[in-house]
Formats: sequence, structure tokens, C-alpha cells
Amino acid sequence: MSYRVAVVGATGAVGREMLKTLAQRNFPAREVAAIASGRSVGQEVSFGDKTLAVQSLEKFDFAGWDIGLFSPGAAVSAVHAPRAAAAGCVVIDNTSQFRMEPDVPLVVPEVNPEALGRIKRGIVANPNCSTIQMVVALKPLHDRFRIRRVVVATYQSTSGAGKEAMEELMAQTRASLVHDPIVVEQFTKQIAFNVIPHIDRFMDDGSTKEEWKMAAETRKILDPDIKVIATCARVPVFIGHAEAVHVEFEKKVTVAAAREILREAPGVQVVDRREDGGYVTPLESQGEDATFVSRLREDPTVENGLAFWCVADNLRKGAALNAVQIAEVLVAQAKRGDGALARRAA
Amino acid sequence: MSYRVAVVGATGAVGREMLKTLAQRNFPAREVAAIASGRSVGQEVSFGDKTLAVQSLEKFDFAGWDIGLFSPGAAVSAVHAPRAAAAGCVVIDNTSQFRMEPDVPLVVPEVNPEALGRIKRGIVANPNCSTIQMVVALKPLHDRFRIRRVVVATYQSTSGAGKEAMEELMAQTRASLVHDPIVVEQFTKQIAFNVIPHIDRFMDDGSTKEEWKMAAETRKILDPDIKVIATCARVPVFIGHAEAVHVEFEKKVTVAAAREILREAPGVQVVDRREDGGYVTPLESQGEDATFVSRLREDPTVENGLAFWCVADNLRKGAALNAVQIAEVLVAQAKRGDGALARRAA
Repeated sequence: MSYRVAVVGATGAVGREMLKTLAQRNFPAREVAAIASGRSVGQEVSFGDKTLAVQSLEKFDFAGWDIGLFSPGAAVSAVHAPRAAAAGCVVIDNTSQFRMEPDVPLVVPEVNPEALGRIKRGIVANPNCSTIQMVVALKPLHDRFRIRRVVVATYQSTSGAGKEAMEELMAQTRASLVHDPIVVEQFTKQIAFNVIPHIDRFMDDGSTKEEWKMAAETRKILDPDIKVIATCARVPVFIGHAEAVHVEFEKKVTVAAAREILREAPGVQVVDRREDGGYVTPLESQGEDATFVSRLREDPTVENGLAFWCVADNLRKGAALNAVQIAEVLVAQAKRGDGALARRAA
Repeated sequence: MSYRVAVVGATGAVGREMLKTLAQRNFPAREVAAIASGRSVGQEVSFGDKTLAVQSLEKFDFAGWDIGLFSPGAAVSAVHAPRAAAAGCVVIDNTSQFRMEPDVPLVVPEVNPEALGRIKRGIVANPNCSTIQMVVALKPLHDRFRIRRVVVATYQSTSGAGKEAMEELMAQTRASLVHDPIVVEQFTKQIAFNVIPHIDRFMDDGSTKEEWKMAAETRKILDPDIKVIATCARVPVFIGHAEAVHVEFEKKVTVAAAREILREAPGVQVVDRREDGGYVTPLESQGEDATFVSRLREDPTVENGLAFWCVADNLRKGAALNAVQIAEVLVAQAKRGDGALARRAA
């Protein structure tokens, strides 16, 4: 069996990573289409050792296409993901558009693959980047020690805001070094040599939408009883999100037990030597599939407390890789004659 | 009354800021000496519109000098601060050497100026930069709502590690832009376009000394019953530390009440509009005296929870300014015929 895969938003940072990931993992695709908004038509993007001509989303007919990997922005997905689904294409959407809809599964394959048995509208949602890496690390700990509350502060790279945001960090850095004027367009303030405590829009309670997402998505994916308070900040890094995670469990936790569980956990790589360099930084996560856990410590300030540092490539596990992994689960289901792709074939 | 002031470590990032701060605040100094290790002799440093020739610490006689502002590194202070104190010079030491000694006051003038009435060994300790700004913001809230526990994650600039560390960020940034090899000397990994979750040395419990300092110093300065868990990380910023602070209080807290208290609090400036740019970033704190508080939110995941974002210039309030403010309190005491400087004159 092989599939026709449409990558929507193919010229963006995540779209390009989706194409790269499909090629690297030898996804069983007999045809791949690179799709973006009309103004990108004429561009070409790489897919393995081939280049694909970008096709217009507005004019694209999804009939006959099996899987749509969408990352075009929420407003665009709102229109075109249901259109693709109506044409019989199973959409894996990386935008925030459908994540909290009760009848759309929100999936991290290492955490809640069973939700892929409940695809109703032909759409699966890919969680927010900062949520994905956190729940990959939290899931095995939750199974053993039961999480009550998480306090997390993030150090998020500019690629989470897209290609233009990365270019702005580069341009501002260059300008700063030669004392040229700094142009601020993608962020609210200069990001070069700075930290901005604001990602996505403000909510009524003073949180940002990004902070709200980390709480709401964690509850939907992992357990509705887990309490999460997040502070999300943008740092002058190109790729790789880091998180300082402080967890309170119901049951007694030790570093030794947590480390052993995390060592066996799918998608997790523990790098935790208590010495110079014995931890993973965002730069080192770039291009890697794993969610890295470092700096494991018991937190003596609360009952059953544990702190750790968590890093992942936000374009890969935080976006493209997770989406492709979802597609791989659908393919495996179809091989067993089961799931959304099999229903489609039938 | 005016005083003879010796600035020790005058060629470092903090020493230079001490000289700048003394000049800017018109500190009543009738003479200022710039002192550093023997290898810096021959250099000159700025003091207001003058330049001072650097003198050798090893050969410097502190007799007749009233105040010593020390920032030469802990091992050097260990030797020379007691030597200066024995000569009758009141030492305000910015290193970690004496901070936790029971008979050395650890002082933030907005928080515990009363500790300056208990100078016994002729030495006052200036707290760690990340502690200072946090306790300036916490003190007025603690007085009103009583703090139980603080969970803090820091975003610390390279200047906290000294002048060479700032130069390394600059050099690595330049090298990175032109794809030259990256030289790592001051940090354990590349800091340009990266985040390093490691400041100071590792402790047995897996914390770093910086994380331990934030807890131990907060308890010594503010209240021994406050529990603090910190995760400290270095970010590619030149000057200005930021902190994501999550506090649990004994009494009910609201954002409105917290904001009103912080607006009146000495040393604090509240900048907190829930809109694009309505918060302070490290870059904006540079050269400022205030500790800025932004992003005030109630934390619904815990009883009486409050979260906020706290930023200050780590070289000023985090080091030089706080030291000079301590000296100013000593001067005010002396005017009333009281305190360490008055005893010295007598």
C-alpha cells in the first residue's frame, strides 16, 4: 500500500520540515504534492532529492488524495481542512484551528494513539509545539506517579513563529552588530539579544493563548485533571524549544525511579549527567527526533515534587515529525484493515 | 561628610558599573580608587568625566579608606575583604564568599536595610543578581499576603558571568553569521542562539549553585520559612535578567491588590498592559535602576497563586546599584551619628 500525500503550507518552516521528514522516514507515499497559497505558486521546494513545484491551495482538488498534512495557519485550515476532508482526504492539521473541538482527536502518538480510533470529521489535530514535547516527557511519569500540577516556563525559539520570524532574528542580529537600525515586524519588540514574554494573543485572565494552550491541550491529550500553569517566552534561538518543568505528583517520586522510567519511554532520551555539559540545549536538539530530558531533580519545596529540563526540535517533534508519526499510525491501522485510511479505501 | 571609596575589581563588568553608578548618583566621595589584580595595572577606567589609573590590589593599603566596593571574584574577596576590613574599611562585597555567613548581613536596601545595623566583621554582602530583583518584587507581596512557596525559572544574561562572557556571546554570534568555527571558553556550550540550563557549579542534589543561592539567599534576606525552587538558565542576551515567578501565598491574593501594592513599592516599576508590548524585556531594563514587574496573573492551579514576570539590569540593581545603595544607607546612618561608618570615624 502506498498513499498520495498533500503537504499544505509547503513553503513555510513547518511545511518544509514535513517534506523533509516524509523523505527521511521513507513514508509510503506514491505521490507528494506541495501546496501553498496562490502567491507562492511558481516556487519550488525540496522533497528528498527531488524538487516539487508549488501548487495553489485555492485551486487544489483533494479528491483522490489520501492524507493532507496541513500547516498553513489557522484561518486557512478553517476553510480548507474541512474541504479536503469532505473530498475524502484524511487531514492532519498542525494549526490551532481544530485542536480543542471535542470531536477532533488531538494526538501525540507516544501519548494517546488510541484517540486515532475516534476520527469522526476526517480531521486529526497536531498539538502545539511546546505542549507536544512536555507531554511526551510527562506521560510515562503520569502513568507511574499521577501528576497533580505542573508549573512550566518556556524558552521558545523563533522558528515557532515561522520562517519570517527566524529571518527577523537573523536580520536584527546583523543590524545590531553593525549598529544599524533594528526593524521590528514579526515580534512586538526586538528579539535579537532579548527575551519576549509574549507568544500568541492575550486572553482575558492575563495569560497568553500559548500559555492557555499548554494547559488546555495537556488536559485533552493526557488527563483532564492535570493542572498546568505556564509562562511562555520567546528567546533569540533559531530552532529548538526548552522548558523548565516543575511537577507535583500524587505518589512519592525519586530521581532514580523517574530516570529509569524516562529511559524506557518512547520518544524520550535522557541526557542527565550532573557536570559541565551534561544536559541538552536547544541548539543540540536541532534535527533530532527525540524529546530530551535533562536536569532531573527532586523538588523538596513540595510533596512529591520533581523538576526537569526538556528540549526538542520544535519543527520536528513539535510539528512535522509528530504529524508524520500520526500518519504512520494511520498507515499501520490501514495495514490491519482498520482506521480512517482503511475506511477511505473501502 | 565625604568618603574615600575603593572599588575593587574595577576593570570587570560590575566594577565599571560601580564606578558609573557612584558618579551618576553623586555619591559623596572625596576620592575614588580603581583597584584590580596586578595584571590590570597600567589600564585606565572611567569615573564620570575622569579616568582613573588602575592600582594593584595586592599592594593596596586600605588604611584611611572608608568604603570598599568589592567585585573581584569570591576567592580574591576571601583574602582581601577581611584584610580591608581589618584596616578599618567597610567592605560591601558583591561576591558569593561571605553571603551565607551568619555574622555577615546580606542586604537589599528596599527589603532588609535593618540588617545594616548588625555589621560585625566590617563586611556587608551584596546578594546574587537573580536573587536581588526577585526579593525586591516579593518583599511587598510577602508583607501583605505571606509567601509559602516560589517556583522561579530564570533567563539570565551573559554579563552575569562577566565581561569575557559577553565578549564570547559577541564573538560566537559573529562567527555563527559567517559560518566560522565557534569557540567555547566561558560557557560549557555555545551560548549564541542557544540556552544553557547551567549557572555556577553542580551541587549534590542536582541543583546548580545558582539555583541554591536563589533559595538560600531569599530565605536569609526575606524570611527563613519561604520555600524556593529555581531553574536557572543562561540566554544569549548581553545585559538584563528576566524571571518567570510563580508564587503561592498564605492569604488570598488578587491581581488588582498585588498591582496596587507593587505600584507603591520602593525600587519596583509595574509595566503591565495586557497587549502587544505591554511588558518589559531585558533589553529595555539595560541602564535602568528599577526592578520591572509585568505579566501579573492569578494562578488558578493552586490556592492563592500569583504569577509574574520580573526584569532588571543585573549589572545595576543586580550588582553595582545595590552595592552603592547599601553604601548610601551607611552614609545616611553616619549622618545620624550611627552605624559602621560613624563607628569608624569615632
